[in-house]
Amino acid sequence: MTRVGVARPDAIRRHNLGLLLTQVHRDGEITRAQLTRRLHLSRSTIGALVADLTELGLVDERVPSGGKRAGRPSHVVGPRADGPYAIAVDVDITHVTSAAIGIGGEVLARHVVATANGPRRPRQAAALVDEAVRELSKRVDPGARPVGIGVSVPGTVSRRTGTVEFAPNLEWRHEAFGEMLAEVVPPELPVYVGNDADLAVLAEHLRGNARDCDDVVYLMGRIGVGAGIIVNGRPLRGHDGHAGEVGHNVVDASGPQCHCGKRGCVETYIGENALLALAGRNVLPTQESIAAVFADASAGDEAAASAVRTVADALGRTVASLVNVLNPERVLLGGSLAGVLEFARDEIVRSVDRFGMGASRHSVQLCTPDLGDDSPLLGAAELAFADLLTDPVGTR
Amino acid sequence: MTRVGVARPDAIRRHNLGLLLTQVHRDGEITRAQLTRRLHLSRSTIGALVADLTELGLVDERVPSGGKRAGRPSHVVGPRADGPYAIAVDVDITHVTSAAIGIGGEVLARHVVATANGPRRPRQAAALVDEAVRELSKRVDPGARPVGIGVSVPGTVSRRTGTVEFAPNLEWRHEAFGEMLAEVVPPELPVYVGNDADLAVLAEHLRGNARDCDDVVYLMGRIGVGAGIIVNGRPLRGHDGHAGEVGHNVVDASGPQCHCGKRGCVETYIGENALLALAGRNVLPTQESIAAVFADASAGDEAAASAVRTVADALGRTVASLVNVLNPERVLLGGSLAGVLEFARDEIVRSVDRFGMGASRHSVQLCTPDLGDDSPLLGAAELAFADLLTDPVGTR
Repeated sequence: MTRVGVARPDAIRRHNLGLLLTQVHRDGEITRAQLTRRLHLSRSTIGALVADLTELGLVDERVPSGGKRAGRPSHVVGPRADGPYAIAVDVDITHVTSAAIGIGGEVLARHVVATANGPRRPRQAAALVDEAVRELSKRVDPGARPVGIGVSVPGTVSRRTGTVEFAPNLEWRHEAFGEMLAEVVPPELPVYVGNDADLAVLAEHLRGNARDCDDVVYLMGRIGVGAGIIVNGRPLRGHDGHAGEVGHNVVDASGPQCHCGKRGCVETYIGENALLALAGRNVLPTQESIAAVFADASAGDEAAASAVRTVADALGRTVASLVNVLNPERVLLGGSLAGVLEFARDEIVRSVDRFGMGASRHSVQLCTPDLGDDSPLLGAAELAFADLLTDPVGTR
Repeated sequence: MTRVGVARPDAIRRHNLGLLLTQVHRDGEITRAQLTRRLHLSRSTIGALVADLTELGLVDERVPSGGKRAGRPSHVVGPRADGPYAIAVDVDITHVTSAAIGIGGEVLARHVVATANGPRRPRQAAALVDEAVRELSKRVDPGARPVGIGVSVPGTVSRRTGTVEFAPNLEWRHEAFGEMLAEVVPPELPVYVGNDADLAVLAEHLRGNARDCDDVVYLMGRIGVGAGIIVNGRPLRGHDGHAGEVGHNVVDASGPQCHCGKRGCVETYIGENALLALAGRNVLPTQESIAAVFADASAGDEAAASAVRTVADALGRTVASLVNVLNPERVLLGGSLAGVLEFARDEIVRSVDRFGMGASRHSVQLCTPDLGDDSPLLGAAELAFADLLTDPVGTR
């Protein structure tokens, strides 16, 4: 607890600065009165802490004008415009999206590079990240400094080392991507690598559609399919950090060949390539080509509609398996699966009902992510912000 | 933390008494020196707390004789012979096992009633529990008092109400079993109901083969199949308390009919009835009939051996699905699945390797439960002991 004023006053102050900055970071803007209530600290302590964070160049205060309530309005504390920012990178198969993200989660600048579909060496991806660091630095406030780099990858990642163990759709195996990144980016910037679905659920739990939800699954549909899971309010990463690889659970051992070497994996039924193939479209899966399937399905194209419904049926079975094992309060369907939910919710619900067990299947809420396609990017920023939020003084 | 000597000394003392009793409960016997180290309290504080627990009739101390080390040997603190006990009940399909279990997890007395295979009304099961309470009370130390009743059920349970939502093999649906129990047992005894696999993993995590393991799955094979899951060192119960129903994940939607109404559920491939049918045995699944399959397989009966290997293959696929999603450090195979592991480990490992993903499948440890068939019973005792361990004074 933070309220015990008995020992190491500086350590306690720094801890409290971290708690306060975390509140500002989560909400974007927050009044002193709200901070006082949430942190159970006195008004004068809050005032002193806000002054410290202002002095550190992290937050600004403004006095709101007007307002209908009587009395003096409470000061609003928010991130400073030239405050520190995180560099977040989302490495996907067809494009690498980078962004400078400020305290509070605002995207300050964005940089997108389209990449060819297919294998790409991790060193090339590392070079794109380095390019993004330089490009983004030109487009933020000249006084702002980056705190670190968080990178989202569609594969299993050993969080401690940043090694990508297996990213089937990038065709990466045992790639020391974290080390490669550290070699090319400016040495003062720490680098963190995480799995896309793990980072997406982190972002949605912090500010999106899972904000008040302690048991949630984010099922991410891109070319590959993976789950980010939060249990008891904490990320489920597993012993090696590889949890959530539901895309490679086998639905039918004699099913279609999968990138991973097995047959009949979940992603051969509900991944983006499956959707395009079912719709009879011999095109690469890009944001545009996937969006076109949903637009055409909504416009009455029977082949597209039927493809989405077929994916919806298989998606319901996948969701049911997760519901049986994890009994989450909510399942967020992200990436292309968001489009499937919007067009064919009834088919998904029917299939969850058919394959799900007992009461869990009735209580689960299905929804789309609040942060859209930016969830992995915003989650990657959290990796870079973590140290600053723990100790705003130490990482100065 | 417990060492802050600033406020509410009685609350802190009671909290520390709970921590100390929990250590005795976990280890059975423990020296004062070990308690001092583990709780980071002074020797004199430990002495005072032990004196309090002795006064409360919960523990005894003895001075060990002999020993090779120099100096005075540390006193050994252990549960008192006429101390409180939990009444634990394991409701299975073919038998209801009850036990009086003391602090430290010792089974003081046991009472087993064989029940016909097939549906049995929950009121009958409640009457058996009441009978067990009276039977067991005659067989423990006359001074000992029961603290409560914990009941394990092979089905999904709403922990708060004790309502059994669905126990397919008992054919119970939405049965207010907790209320029925409370109506028949002595009113001073609180009643708790839990799922068998959830309780089994609790017991193994406390004293068995998952003692030092924060990410573990206990896959329980009886007539039904369910998983008890611990993640980040805490039970994964899910939003409604129904997590772990892996037995009803569908392997093949056109597979064998399952009790639950669906086709091709995991338990139709690896449950006890599947094993007996594969071995060509038209008998009821009892401990004896299941043990006979494994004994015959080991003695060279080809039909039995082939049946076990076929179950092992399907079991490996089930384990692989759990490993992909949860990435546990260890998977304990309990009930009849323990026998499958002992006879056909290679087949299981091969199948986990075929259906599992990336590094997770290589790192996972497969083992049998340390507490054998008693895991659910010992876990049920934990439900009854929880209040006493939290506050040994308050529940006097």
